[in-house]
Amino acid sequence: MDPESVARAFVLHYYTTFDANRAGLANLYQDGSMLTFEGQKIQGSQNIVAKLTNLPFQQCQHSISTVDFQPSGPAGGMLVFVSGNLQLAGEQHALKFSQMFHLMPTAQGNFYVLNDIFRLNYA
Amino acid sequence: MDPESVARAFVLHYYTTFDANRAGLANLYQDGSMLTFEGQKIQGSQNIVAKLTNLPFQQCQHSISTVDFQPSGPAGGMLVFVSGNLQLAGEQHALKFSQMFHLMPTAQGNFYVLNDIFRLNYA
Repeated sequence: MDPESVARAFVLHYYTTFDANRAGLANLYQDGSMLTFEGQKIQGSQNIVAKLTNLPFQQCQHSISTVDFQPSGPAGGMLVFVSGNLQLAGEQHALKFSQMFHLMPTAQGNFYVLNDIFRLNYA
Repeated sequence: MDPESVARAFVLHYYTTFDANRAGLANLYQDGSMLTFEGQKIQGSQNIVAKLTNLPFQQCQHSISTVDFQPSGPAGGMLVFVSGNLQLAGEQHALKFSQMFHLMPTAQGNFYVLNDIFRLNYA
């Protein structure tokens, strides 16, 4: 797949999984993966998924506004930068968010998330 | 310097230079550097600075809200994720923005910007 297809397929897969079954995100991360969520630093697939599954809301729906991507260097990684809206169940207004991922190739020819930084964009 | 000090010093230097003298950003980029500005892809220090100096506003002031950073892998790079406000001269309301940088070490022990992705967060 070309880089744009990889980026868009990743974004679709990530947020669809997040909204349907957050525990299913575990296989996108590895032990060395890092998440910074609203300034809180978490490392490792297990800890990252524990954080995501224990967020103080049950149901949510991400709507993606923009997807930008760039190759990250000679190791074959890709940076993916996303902006969009996050609608929490029972809330009137959606929250705006920005998130960046650094995808790195696996030995099996897939990608995993090495870096993940998430921020809400408060109005 | 520790990573947090590097990230914060870079952010301070970048936006101070942007607001005072955009042409001075040239030495932060190299020929292989990439900028995606509101979806437009630009490569190389000269082209990037030409884009930034020709933006359709003269004076602006960035105010930084958040700075997140993570190491980007074994090559010694660092990801820096910034959110903040951009006040254009003569405009009543500031614009919200998010921007990510991938800093890579130079042979001289400094960092340059390999990747730069900028997005306004429209209300």
